[in-house]
Amino acid sequence: MTTASICTIGDEILIGQIVDTNSSKIASALNAAGVKVNEMISVSDNGTEILNGLEHCLRTSHVVVVTGGLGPTKDDITKKTLADLTGAVKYYESAEQLEVIRRVLTVRGIEMSDINLAQASVPETCKVIVNECGTAPCMQFEFPENKYGHKCLLFSLPGVPFEAEAAIPKVIAAIKENYPLENIFHKTLCTFGIPESTLAKRIEEWEDHLPENLHLAYLPNPILGVRLRLSIYGIGEEEGKQELDRYTETLRPLLGNALYGQEEDSLQSVIGNILKNNGKTVAVAESCTGGMLASLFTSVAGSSAYFYGGVISYDNSVKTGVLKVKKETLDKYGAVSRECVEEMAAGVRNLMKTDYAIATSGIAGPGGGTADKPVGTVWVAAASGERVVTEKFSFSGSRKLNIERFASHAMNLLRTQILCRETGNRMREE
Amino acid sequence: MTTASICTIGDEILIGQIVDTNSSKIASALNAAGVKVNEMISVSDNGTEILNGLEHCLRTSHVVVVTGGLGPTKDDITKKTLADLTGAVKYYESAEQLEVIRRVLTVRGIEMSDINLAQASVPETCKVIVNECGTAPCMQFEFPENKYGHKCLLFSLPGVPFEAEAAIPKVIAAIKENYPLENIFHKTLCTFGIPESTLAKRIEEWEDHLPENLHLAYLPNPILGVRLRLSIYGIGEEEGKQELDRYTETLRPLLGNALYGQEEDSLQSVIGNILKNNGKTVAVAESCTGGMLASLFTSVAGSSAYFYGGVISYDNSVKTGVLKVKKETLDKYGAVSRECVEEMAAGVRNLMKTDYAIATSGIAGPGGGTADKPVGTVWVAAASGERVVTEKFSFSGSRKLNIERFASHAMNLLRTQILCRETGNRMREE
Repeated sequence: MTTASICTIGDEILIGQIVDTNSSKIASALNAAGVKVNEMISVSDNGTEILNGLEHCLRTSHVVVVTGGLGPTKDDITKKTLADLTGAVKYYESAEQLEVIRRVLTVRGIEMSDINLAQASVPETCKVIVNECGTAPCMQFEFPENKYGHKCLLFSLPGVPFEAEAAIPKVIAAIKENYPLENIFHKTLCTFGIPESTLAKRIEEWEDHLPENLHLAYLPNPILGVRLRLSIYGIGEEEGKQELDRYTETLRPLLGNALYGQEEDSLQSVIGNILKNNGKTVAVAESCTGGMLASLFTSVAGSSAYFYGGVISYDNSVKTGVLKVKKETLDKYGAVSRECVEEMAAGVRNLMKTDYAIATSGIAGPGGGTADKPVGTVWVAAASGERVVTEKFSFSGSRKLNIERFASHAMNLLRTQILCRETGNRMREE
Repeated sequence: MTTASICTIGDEILIGQIVDTNSSKIASALNAAGVKVNEMISVSDNGTEILNGLEHCLRTSHVVVVTGGLGPTKDDITKKTLADLTGAVKYYESAEQLEVIRRVLTVRGIEMSDINLAQASVPETCKVIVNECGTAPCMQFEFPENKYGHKCLLFSLPGVPFEAEAAIPKVIAAIKENYPLENIFHKTLCTFGIPESTLAKRIEEWEDHLPENLHLAYLPNPILGVRLRLSIYGIGEEEGKQELDRYTETLRPLLGNALYGQEEDSLQSVIGNILKNNGKTVAVAESCTGGMLASLFTSVAGSSAYFYGGVISYDNSVKTGVLKVKKETLDKYGAVSRECVEEMAAGVRNLMKTDYAIATSGIAGPGGGTADKPVGTVWVAAASGERVVTEKFSFSGSRKLNIERFASHAMNLLRTQILCRETGNRMREE
């Protein structure tokens, strides 16, 4: 089986100043193409450590994908290390990359400097894969079988996430030219609303009867819920997919209405599809989630077809002035109350003239909680037509995590309401 | 110097289904405590690979911090591997962790299952560090000098990010008890609005005169701009901090008004501080950024003191109906125009009665662009009192990246306006 190691270079990663998102994107693409990712490593911007890291990767795997250490600034040790590793003496200028550098700089209104010019220059041992989105070229190096015990391909990509991502299809194509690829298949079911341990208990018996070449993984996420990923190895395409279908079909009934989608689905994409198919619209009224609900809706391309907009009513004056929440409601019950979110949801629905609306009001923390309404308390409401349904949740987590959970639970309340009204599904008693 | 390796366990990481954020948090804390992180690795949920990965880490570094592979579900191979590695035969039940498990489950309204009960059971060779936020205990193992050439400490933390994060201070405390820690100091300056290569050119001469033990790194980020991190090694605390101050003082004037803060500052936290100190308020009117601007403001704890709220006017009916953008403006200039964002900013400022307001209207993509207004075009406006300033930007990137850049450039426009009005700073011609 063709294997890969992913190596990220950068002190900024090892001191924890940035999170490496490139490895995940690259791993996902390699995996889908049937390349097994053995390991990911991150090393510092030091020449010796880069060299040791790369040699370790080359010994471990057929394919090595490196990101980082390239860029217009002076921390460019990677190119030199790769030249040394492959015995390159001379550099050559990539005319194609230079063309892109010129174009990118023109769009951004920046003048070409000698630093930019140097970026088009690469070791003679490499084949350039043009970086269409940025100034640093991607480089492909080949190592003969006698060097590390197997033929190796090494790809060096820039660290800027969208530049690295754009290069991935070309990397996959080059791998396919050089190695016969075996199949791995995955199937993911997305659930929301059942805690991981409860879910594990519920599907325990089903899980105990899985064959050896089928692997189940739990992927909990505050926004996406708990996703269940089934992976099958060492089997042909058609048979593999059939097996995955067969086992997911027996799993579905165990999940009930907590099951909301599969693969890359999110609550907001699933809701969006139902709304679009039924010609319906939605708006949001947010207090504690502060724009997160709207952001989730609008993260989906094409959401303008059904998402009309929202009001972020952080200050109570906006709740009363724009959303027409009654002053007495705030005085009597407070902003974090069933009554307030009901009026917020109804208010934004009237204001924006949508079919549905969601509202949130809670205490994200770290300050602001009371004994009665501690940090982590949220009231959410979903208005469907004239009817408003509310629910209260309590969480314990950071401000960021609380906001994410508040938003996703509000989104899920809307989903169950939409399922009832638009598809005639009845909520099953969980 | 005391060194550390960070090892994350999980197929979900190697197949690219989730991004590892734990390593970054842990690295940041270790670094601040003076522990040098040598490397980060990610391995699969397979017993042999976990064992190989851990032994590699133990040989490489004094301290090994492991996350993942623990949890209420069946993919708990980590505990068994750690038991084997340390020669544990028996397990014992941690009464303290069991107490937390009971508490956590009660809050969430979940009944205790035998799966939860098993989580409190740990190998006899480990010292439990109670996980206060979740059900899986953190474990500390010690390896004598003769095993890997140096005394090693291994910490195993749960994979759930906020649970891992909560355990970090206890891990640091345990490391301090066992190793003498050396100093590393960092100082970060945050800039916005100057591209990385232009910045590099501008400070080239300054950079050429840095001493050998001072290292400069560029940290570009679509939301935070380009941050410049200076690190100093092998020097006492007072002297180290003085050196960092001395070099950053000579750097500041080269950065002009692009310099907006330091360390963990963000555009929104800096703006927030100025508003709070001057008793001023702000609101947002968003089209293409769809809630991202509001989310950035409200990501800052205490933002309710100056952030009143916003209107997400995704549909044009909301622009005219709620924000009072004139229908003629939309007909004549379109929603992505100087005229529209001017009216949006003024509209939300009137509606919410704030001192300042920002508005955005653009095309995030992937669809929807025209030859005249291609994907990546955005108009942003900042209203300060009755005056509205606008600016147009063009970017090329994914939908997500475009939204982030639209929002941060709007935020930066507001920052420069606020600097003018609240602190009397004049924009320097860049």
